[in-house]
Amino acid sequence: MPMATETLADYSLSIDRSPQNDLTGRFRRIRRQTEELCRPLAIEDYGLQSMPETSPPKWHLAHTTWFFETFLLSRFHDGYRPFHPEFSFLFNSYYNAVGPRWARPERGLLSRPTVEEVYRYRRSIDDEVSELLNGPKGRRSEVVELCTLGLNHEQQHQELILTDIKHAFAKNPLRPVYRETPAARGDAPPVSWIRFPQGIVEIGHQGPEFAFDNELPRHRALVHDYLLAGRLTTNAEYQAFMAAGGYQRPEVWLSDGWAAKQTNDWNAPLYWHETPDGWMQMTLAGWRPVVGDEPVCHVSYYEADAYARWAQARLPTEAEWETAAGQPLAGHFLDAGNFHPLATPASDDSGPVYALYGDVWQWTASPYVPYPGYQPAAGALGEYNGKFMCNQMVLRGASCATPRSHARSSYRNFFPPEARWQFAGIRLAKDVK
Amino acid sequence: MPMATETLADYSLSIDRSPQNDLTGRFRRIRRQTEELCRPLAIEDYGLQSMPETSPPKWHLAHTTWFFETFLLSRFHDGYRPFHPEFSFLFNSYYNAVGPRWARPERGLLSRPTVEEVYRYRRSIDDEVSELLNGPKGRRSEVVELCTLGLNHEQQHQELILTDIKHAFAKNPLRPVYRETPAARGDAPPVSWIRFPQGIVEIGHQGPEFAFDNELPRHRALVHDYLLAGRLTTNAEYQAFMAAGGYQRPEVWLSDGWAAKQTNDWNAPLYWHETPDGWMQMTLAGWRPVVGDEPVCHVSYYEADAYARWAQARLPTEAEWETAAGQPLAGHFLDAGNFHPLATPASDDSGPVYALYGDVWQWTASPYVPYPGYQPAAGALGEYNGKFMCNQMVLRGASCATPRSHARSSYRNFFPPEARWQFAGIRLAKDVK
Amino acid sequence: MPMATETLADYSLSIDRSPQNDLTGRFRRIRRQTEELCRPLAIEDYGLQSMPETSPPKWHLAHTTWFFETFLLSRFHDGYRPFHPEFSFLFNSYYNAVGPRWARPERGLLSRPTVEEVYRYRRSIDDEVSELLNGPKGRRSEVVELCTLGLNHEQQHQELILTDIKHAFAKNPLRPVYRETPAARGDAPPVSWIRFPQGIVEIGHQGPEFAFDNELPRHRALVHDYLLAGRLTTNAEYQAFMAAGGYQRPEVWLSDGWAAKQTNDWNAPLYWHETPDGWMQMTLAGWRPVVGDEPVCHVSYYEADAYARWAQARLPTEAEWETAAGQPLAGHFLDAGNFHPLATPASDDSGPVYALYGDVWQWTASPYVPYPGYQPAAGALGEYNGKFMCNQMVLRGASCATPRSHARSSYRNFFPPEARWQFAGIRLAKDVK
Amino acid sequence: MPMATETLADYSLSIDRSPQNDLTGRFRRIRRQTEELCRPLAIEDYGLQSMPETSPPKWHLAHTTWFFETFLLSRFHDGYRPFHPEFSFLFNSYYNAVGPRWARPERGLLSRPTVEEVYRYRRSIDDEVSELLNGPKGRRSEVVELCTLGLNHEQQHQELILTDIKHAFAKNPLRPVYRETPAARGDAPPVSWIRFPQGIVEIGHQGPEFAFDNELPRHRALVHDYLLAGRLTTNAEYQAFMAAGGYQRPEVWLSDGWAAKQTNDWNAPLYWHETPDGWMQMTLAGWRPVVGDEPVCHVSYYEADAYARWAQARLPTEAEWETAAGQPLAGHFLDAGNFHPLATPASDDSGPVYALYGDVWQWTASPYVPYPGYQPAAGALGEYNGKFMCNQMVLRGASCATPRSHARSSYRNFFPPEARWQFAGIRLAKDVK
Repeated sequence: MPMATETLADYSLSIDRSPQNDLTGRFRRIRRQTEELCRPLAIEDYGLQSMPETSPPKWHLAHTTWFFETFLLSRFHDGYRPFHPEFSFLFNSYYNAVGPRWARPERGLLSRPTVEEVYRYRRSIDDEVSELLNGPKGRRSEVVELCTLGLNHEQQHQELILTDIKHAFAKNPLRPVYRETPAARGDAPPVSWIRFPQGIVEIGHQGPEFAFDNELPRHRALVHDYLLAGRLTTNAEYQAFMAAGGYQRPEVWLSDGWAAKQTNDWNAPLYWHETPDGWMQMTLAGWRPVVGDEPVCHVSYYEADAYARWAQARLPTEAEWETAAGQPLAGHFLDAGNFHPLATPASDDSGPVYALYGDVWQWTASPYVPYPGYQPAAGALGEYNGKFMCNQMVLRGASCATPRSHARSSYRNFFPPEARWQFAGIRLAKDVK
Repeated sequence: MPMATETLADYSLSIDRSPQNDLTGRFRRIRRQTEELCRPLAIEDYGLQSMPETSPPKWHLAHTTWFFETFLLSRFHDGYRPFHPEFSFLFNSYYNAVGPRWARPERGLLSRPTVEEVYRYRRSIDDEVSELLNGPKGRRSEVVELCTLGLNHEQQHQELILTDIKHAFAKNPLRPVYRETPAARGDAPPVSWIRFPQGIVEIGHQGPEFAFDNELPRHRALVHDYLLAGRLTTNAEYQAFMAAGGYQRPEVWLSDGWAAKQTNDWNAPLYWHETPDGWMQMTLAGWRPVVGDEPVCHVSYYEADAYARWAQARLPTEAEWETAAGQPLAGHFLDAGNFHPLATPASDDSGPVYALYGDVWQWTASPYVPYPGYQPAAGALGEYNGKFMCNQMVLRGASCATPRSHARSSYRNFFPPEARWQFAGIRLAKDVK
Repeated sequence: MPMATETLADYSLSIDRSPQNDLTGRFRRIRRQTEELCRPLAIEDYGLQSMPETSPPKWHLAHTTWFFETFLLSRFHDGYRPFHPEFSFLFNSYYNAVGPRWARPERGLLSRPTVEEVYRYRRSIDDEVSELLNGPKGRRSEVVELCTLGLNHEQQHQELILTDIKHAFAKNPLRPVYRETPAARGDAPPVSWIRFPQGIVEIGHQGPEFAFDNELPRHRALVHDYLLAGRLTTNAEYQAFMAAGGYQRPEVWLSDGWAAKQTNDWNAPLYWHETPDGWMQMTLAGWRPVVGDEPVCHVSYYEADAYARWAQARLPTEAEWETAAGQPLAGHFLDAGNFHPLATPASDDSGPVYALYGDVWQWTASPYVPYPGYQPAAGALGEYNGKFMCNQMVLRGASCATPRSHARSSYRNFFPPEARWQFAGIRLAKDVK
Repeated sequence: MPMATETLADYSLSIDRSPQNDLTGRFRRIRRQTEELCRPLAIEDYGLQSMPETSPPKWHLAHTTWFFETFLLSRFHDGYRPFHPEFSFLFNSYYNAVGPRWARPERGLLSRPTVEEVYRYRRSIDDEVSELLNGPKGRRSEVVELCTLGLNHEQQHQELILTDIKHAFAKNPLRPVYRETPAARGDAPPVSWIRFPQGIVEIGHQGPEFAFDNELPRHRALVHDYLLAGRLTTNAEYQAFMAAGGYQRPEVWLSDGWAAKQTNDWNAPLYWHETPDGWMQMTLAGWRPVVGDEPVCHVSYYEADAYARWAQARLPTEAEWETAAGQPLAGHFLDAGNFHPLATPASDDSGPVYALYGDVWQWTASPYVPYPGYQPAAGALGEYNGKFMCNQMVLRGASCATPRSHARSSYRNFFPPEARWQFAGIRLAKDVK
C-alpha cells in the first residue's frame, strides 16, 4: 500500500488538508478532483451507462455542475442566465420541485452535449461560483451553506464515478483497466470481538461541521449489550460460506434475498468469476485473483445478512456501529488511490475496531428511516435525503472510493438491499448471551 | 352495528369464548369458523386468484389443513400416511425445508382437487388431529404448542379469505356480494391527541399465552415524547387530502411511493370509484357509497405516509403504538360480522385511544425487523416469520376481518409498503415540540 | 377406436348427419353438442384459464351464446332486451364495432355469472333463436346466413373447449382425466410421396354451402411440380429428429423459431415429458406413453419447419395442400370421440394422401394473407377473419377435435407460428428436382 | 436538390460509377464511403444504441470489417491470425455457425475498443483484403464472390448507419444535426394509376450480376389485373388520413397493428411532433417542418396497411411491384446526399411509375417467404437471409439512404411489420373491378 500511495502522491494531495474556512480553495480542489478521476477515461467511456442505477461519467460531471448552477447561481446571482436552456432538463437527477427531467435509464443515450462541451460547462460554472464566493458578502451564510452542500454532493458523485465505471468496464469482455495499481500484499489481522455495554447512547451529528440532514437530530438511543467484530469479513471467510453451500441453502437467507439470488443467479460476489485458475475478479486495475485476506466486497445486503446468519452472528445496527466508532478517522480512502479494499489496516488505524472507515462500506441491520424529530430541508433541497427513507438499508463507514474529507462517524449511506455495485462489505456483530 | 351483530349471532359465537385450555374445542370451533366464512361462496368462487399476492379460498382451506398434517400429524402420528401424495407439493406456501411447491401465482389454476375433495381433506385431518389431541399424553406439550400455532395460522388465513375474495369480487363488473349487511350509521368522534411521555418502555409479548416468535423477546425500548391521535383517520379527512391535490404533489410522497402511485395510477384508496353520484366503493356487501365518518381503509403505507406528511403529522412507531395500547381489548372484529370498518367506536371501547383494535390495521413508521435478541424457531417453523424481515412495514392493531381471539397488543402484522388489499388504515402521531 | 366410438355412440350422433336445410335441427344439435363436451367437467373446471390465449369453458359457452344474441336476436327481434346488461361487455371477444370488452387474459377471473347462470343464458337464447327460426319469413335469408355463421362459430369453439381444457389440465400435477378412452393400437402405413404436376389451379371455396369469408374468392393460383407425403409425420420420426440434436442445432431453425425455443425452453412437443419409463405425454385421457406410430402433435410452426428442414423436405403451401385435397372427406374427427390423433387411417379414408382431415391440423408454409380480391363482410362481422391476416401461418385439414361437418378442403385455419396447444402436426412436401 | 448535390459533390462520387470488374477499386471506394458517412459524427456518437434493433456506428464499422475477416481472410489467407482474439465474439451479428456472440441489445456498452482502434482494425483488414485481391489467382472465383457479398453487406450497413444514428439523435432533446442540407422545394406530381394485366410473369434475379440468395431462383408467378399508383403517398395525403381519425378507428387496422398502435401510442409517423407551429419532424438535417408534398416516411407496415384500407386501396404484392419495375433505375439515393425523401421525382426518372427507387422503401403486402425452389447458401453464409423468413414483410425499391449501386428491381428488403425507423413509405395498388 505505501507504494501505491506514493506513486499516486500528486493525486491524493488535492482535497483533504484544506482548512474548512478556505471555501474557495476547497471548491477548486474538489471540483478539480472530480475531473482528475475522469482523466484515465477515453472519450468513449464518458457516455457509458451499464444499468439504470448507474450514470455515465459525463452525466456525473454535468449533474454536479447543474447542482451549483441551480441551487447557487440561479438563486444568488442576479439576472443569472442558464448556461444552456436544456441542461436543467438533462441533468436534474430527481428534484421534482425543479421541474421535469430526462429519464434516468436513458442517460447513456445523450451523446450530446459532448465531453468537451460538458467541460466547458464546468469551467463556466466554476468561474461564476468563484466570483460569487469572492463577491459581496450579502446572504453570505446561505451561499456558504449551499456551496458546502454542493461540494459534499460532488464528493458523493466522485465515489459513484468510480463504482459506475467499474460496473461498466466489468461488462466489457476486453476488461478495460481504469488505472494500473500494484497488487497489494499483506495479511488480515485475526478477528477479535469487542464488547460494548448496554445503555442510552447519543447518536447523530453534532458540532458546526457539515452534515447531511439525515444525520440529524442528534438524539438518544438505547443499545443492548453487544460484541462487534474488530475487523471486516475477509474473502477467505466468505469463500468458506460459499464452500458450505451458502448460495444453495435457502434457510440462511431472507425470503426476498433468496428470490433475488435466484432471479439474478448469484453464486458469488459481484465481479467474481470462477476460472480454471481459481476465483478471479474484475477490479479497477483489471482482472485480478481474489485474495483471501482482503475484505469481501460487492455483496448485497441479502448476502451480508445470509453470511452473518450462517456465521451464527448478525449485522450491527447503526446505533451499535456509531457507538463503536468513537475512535479517530483512519483508513484507506479514495485519496490513497487504491480503488480496492486492502487486507492490512491503514498505518494510522489504531483500532481496536479496525477499518471502520475506508476499504468497504459496512451493511447494517438498520432500515433507512428518519431519526426521531427529523426535519427535511425546505424547498427543493428537502428532496435530498428524506424521500428515500423506505426500502433501503443503512451502510456505515466509508470505502476505498470515498474521499477522506467526506467521511465521518455519523454518516448514513443507504442503498436497496439488492445493490451490489458499491464497495460494500461485512462487519459482524453478536448478542451477548 | 348492533343489528348486524344480531343477525349474525350464530356466526359470531364460534370462536372467542372458548377457554384456552379446551384445545379440542378451540380446534373444532376455529376450523369450523373457516368453513363458515366460505359458506356464502359459489363453487366457482373457490378457485379465484385475482393477483399473485392473493390465494383462492380453496387454497386457504387446503393450506391450513396441510399445516396441521405436516407439522402435527406427520410428526406425532406414528406411521402417518399423507392424505394425498401431491398435496404437500400443492399446498405448501413457502416452507423451503418441507420441499418444493406449486408456484404461488398459479394457485388459481388448480381446479382439482375439487371443493368437495378439499372439504373431505379437512374432515380427514380434523378427525386425525382430534384423535391426537385426545390420545396418549406423550410429547403432549409439543402437540399443544404446534396445534395452537396451527390455529393461530388458521385465523390469519380467515382474514385472508375475506381480503382475498374482496379483491377478486372487486374485479368483477357484476360486483358480487359476499354477504349483505345493513349499512352502518353513526358519527366519528372528534380527534383528540393523547400525550405520552418519553422514557424506557417494555414492548413485546409476555406471559404464558400464545404469541408468534416475532413478538419476542420482550425488551426495553426508548420512546421520545409523542402525541397519538385518539381515533383513526376518516374518509372525509382523506378526501380533504385528495381535494388538496394529495395525489398530484410528489413533495409529500416518498420517492418509491410516488413511483408506485404513477405506475399503478393511484388516485384514491383501492376499491374507490368516482361516479356521477360521488365516490362509491366496493365492499363485501357490494357497491356502497363512501361514508365520510368511516375510517379510511385500503390505503398503502405510501399513501398513509403521504397523508400524514400532508397533515403535518407522521405515523407512529410500533413502540409508540404498543406503549399506548395498554387498554383492554375492544373493537369491531371479524366476529361481529361487519366485514367493513365502522364510524362509531365499539360499545366496549372506552378509549382514550379509540379503535386501537378492529376496524382497520394501522400502518406504523416501523420497518419490520427482528427485535433485539430475536431467535426464530428451529426447523421448518423457523420460516414462519423471520425470513420476511425485510422490505415490509409493521401494522398494528387488528381489523374488521381479524378474529377477536387473534388480537393482542404485541401483535406484529406486516405487509410490503405498496400493499392495499388488506383492511389497513391510518392513525396519526406527532412529535412534541 | 371402434370401442371408443361405440361407448360414445350417443355422443357422436348429434351433429353431422343433419340435412343442411334443417337449420332448426342443426341449431339444436350443435348447441347441445357444445354442452355435451362440457359434461365431463367439474364446476371448478369451467373457470380455468391457463394462459392468455385460452379461455375458460364457461366463457366459451357464454361467448358463443352472445354471438347469437348480438348478431341475430338484437338485429331481427323487434324490441329485444339483452338477457343481462353486462354480458355484452363480458363475452365480446374482439369485436371493436360492438363496443368495449373484458380483457382477454382475465377471463378466468369471472367466477360470476356462475355455470348455472350461463346455462340459463344458453337456454334463454336458444329458445329465442328457435322462435326466430320458426317465425315469420321476413328477412329470412339474412337470418339463415347469420345463424349458419353462428353455428360454424360455435363449432370452432367446440374445438377450443377441448384444446383449452387440455392445456389447463396439463398444468395440474394431479393430471386430471377429461375422458377415459381406451388406448388405440395400430401401425402407421409407410410413407409414399405423391407427385403433383405444375400448373394453374383453382383454390378457394365454391358452391352454395357455407364457407368463411377468408376462403373467398375462389381464384387461380400457380403451383410448381411438387411431392406431398402420403401420410403425417409420426412421433417416431420426430423422435429421430430429437435424437439427432434437432433442438440443439440452430442451423435448422428459423431465427425467430430458435429464439422461441430458447425463451420457452422447448425440447420436445408440448405435453411431452421424459421419464425413467420413456417419453410420456398428457392427453385428454390422462397420462399416456408417447406412441411412435401416432402422428406427432402439439408442435409449433417453428418446430414443424425445423423438422422439415432437417428431413430435407419442406412444408407444403396452402395451394399445394388444397390441390391435393380433392379426395372425399374422411378421417378421425371430434365426432369419433378419440380426442387424440391415431396411428391408423380412418376406415373410410381411401387415400392416396391419408389423414388429410382429422387427427391433426397440418402447418403449411403459407403466411395467412387475403386471397386476391378478398373482401371482408360489412359491419362488425367484417372483424371475423380479415383483421388477423398478419403474423400467422395457415393450417389446413382438421383435427381430432374438429366436428366432421365443420371440415372442408378450402378451410383456412390460422395460428401464430409459436402456438402449440392446438392439435397441430406435420405433413411434408418436396420440390421435384 | 441540385445545390445539395453540388455541395456534396466529393461525397457522392465515390461509389457508383466504378466498373464491376474493378473489384479492388470498388472495395476501396465502398469501404471509404462507410467511413465518410461517419465523418459528421462526434466520438461520443459512435457508441450510441437507442434501441435493441439499432446498432452503434462503431459497431457497424467493426462488424462489416469482421465480415471480411471471417468469411474472406480466415478462409483464404493461410495462417491468418485474427486482428484481436475477442473481436469475433464482439462483432458477430447473428451467425450461429461462427460461434457465440455479444448480446445485441448491449452493443452500446462496448466503449472499448475505441473508435480509433476500430479504424485501425479497418485499416488492417483493408490492407489484407487488398493484398488477397491482388494476390495469386488460386480459388479466385470464390474470393471474388465472397468479397462481392461483403461489399453488398457493407452497403446494407451504410444505410443502417444513417437510420440508426437518426433514431439515436431523435431521442436527444438537443436535436443534433447529422448534416445540414438545404430544405428541398418542389411539388409532387398528381397521382395516376397505371394498369397492369393479369398473366404469368417471371420474377427474381437473373443475369451474372450480384444478387442475394433470397432473390433466387427466378421463377414464374401469377398476377391478376391490377392498378399501381404512379407515385408515392405524400405527407398531405397521410395527414388527411390522420384528420379523418385514422389513428382512432380500429376498423381500418389489422388486429396486431391496432395493438401495436395502442402499446406504443402511435398517433403519427415516427419522428413527427405536433407543435403550436404545426407538425414538425426530426430529420438528419435537424428539426424541420413536415412538408405536404414529400413522400410520407417512417411508417410501419401496420400504418401503411391501415392507410391503404382507409384510402380504399391496398398495398401491392411483391410480384406486382417487380412486374411494374421494368423501367431503368432512377431516383434519389444515398449518393445524392439528401438523406431525406424529396417531393419531386429525380431528374432521370422518366416514369410512368415514379420514384420506384430511392426516397423511400415501399411496404408490400407480401410476407417474406422463400421463393419456390429457394436454397440458402452452404455453411455460415446460409444464415444470411433464409433464417429470417418469418414474421417479416417485404419492402421493395430503395431509399434515400441506399447506395445507388446497391439497388435493383429484384431486391427484397424485409422488416417486421412494426418497424418504423427505416426510410419506409407507401405506394398504393388496387384491384381492377
